[in-house]
Amino acid sequence: MSPKRPYEVIASEHLWQSRWYSLRQDRLRAPNGSEATYTVVEKPGAVWVVPVTEQGALVLINQYRYPVDDWCLEVPAGNVEPEFTPAEMAVRELREEIGGTASQIVPIAEFYTMNGIGNEIAWVFLALGVTLGRPRREPTEHMELCIVPVGEALRMARTGLIKDGPSALAILLCEAELGTHFPESV
Amino acid sequence: MSPKRPYEVIASEHLWQSRWYSLRQDRLRAPNGSEATYTVVEKPGAVWVVPVTEQGALVLINQYRYPVDDWCLEVPAGNVEPEFTPAEMAVRELREEIGGTASQIVPIAEFYTMNGIGNEIAWVFLALGVTLGRPRREPTEHMELCIVPVGEALRMARTGLIKDGPSALAILLCEAELGTHFPESV
Repeated sequence: MSPKRPYEVIASEHLWQSRWYSLRQDRLRAPNGSEATYTVVEKPGAVWVVPVTEQGALVLINQYRYPVDDWCLEVPAGNVEPEFTPAEMAVRELREEIGGTASQIVPIAEFYTMNGIGNEIAWVFLALGVTLGRPRREPTEHMELCIVPVGEALRMARTGLIKDGPSALAILLCEAELGTHFPESV
Repeated sequence: MSPKRPYEVIASEHLWQSRWYSLRQDRLRAPNGSEATYTVVEKPGAVWVVPVTEQGALVLINQYRYPVDDWCLEVPAGNVEPEFTPAEMAVRELREEIGGTASQIVPIAEFYTMNGIGNEIAWVFLALGVTLGRPRREPTEHMELCIVPVGEALRMARTGLIKDGPSALAILLCEAELGTHFPESV
């Protein structure tokens, strides 16, 4: 296998920066001497948290997403802030987005959401024994909760009804662990 | 449910444009009169094609991805060019990336890859009866084929071994259809 990074970075600059993500343009030189430009969506990693109640109900959020002009079923998710670990952010997102607290936060997997253009890592957590309270973020008319049995949520993820890709994958990555807790559901 | 687009777009400009994706900044006005700025990664939709041979082998590509500085197992994928339909692009990507031809291209599902920051749609296709030939794109030392039984590929996607999220989800979305063709594998 080739060395980990087959290119040498000979220049790098930010074209645009914001709190949520930035655009970084790198000038690269390949081992054969040829040069190329690669523009990367630079973004902190983010957590996707799959919340399941003691009774085996999975909590989804139906929310309006401006970039795609569509309503999407999703699990709570958010960027990992520099002062927190992914597991700590999972706890926070759960509380902020659905007012949830969990008896257990299980790290499940990680994946890249857009490895051709950006560096975002998705950390997936399963939150077990979730109880719901009042979300910290302002309630808006652009989101609502959708609570379904675990088996139904898995079916919705498997059949494309959950159109937010990272949320669908997060749920499917939890399938084995869900099977040990709710064997009749998966 | 709220109207489809709860915001009025009062201004829109491109901050940066390229052949692969662009950065568009919109000024929005909410129904309550408040204004906000949203910056969107504007990107054409793309196809992810899950290639399976007559014998039930699934063809993965192991390739270096500069934005994440990592090697990733993936299925053939690429942007949909304006003059082609997603199904036509699936045929082209199969041929270009692995030199493959399929006896059947089955549309499976679609999802959003990054609905919080970008508008990319992923179209998933299952390519059945695939035979391999010489890829059209230049062979490089930054990719290699990895051919595994369908059941093993599903296991790799379910357990997070396929770290490219859209590829993992594409494979899992094909599970039901794969089950009808290779019932002993899923």
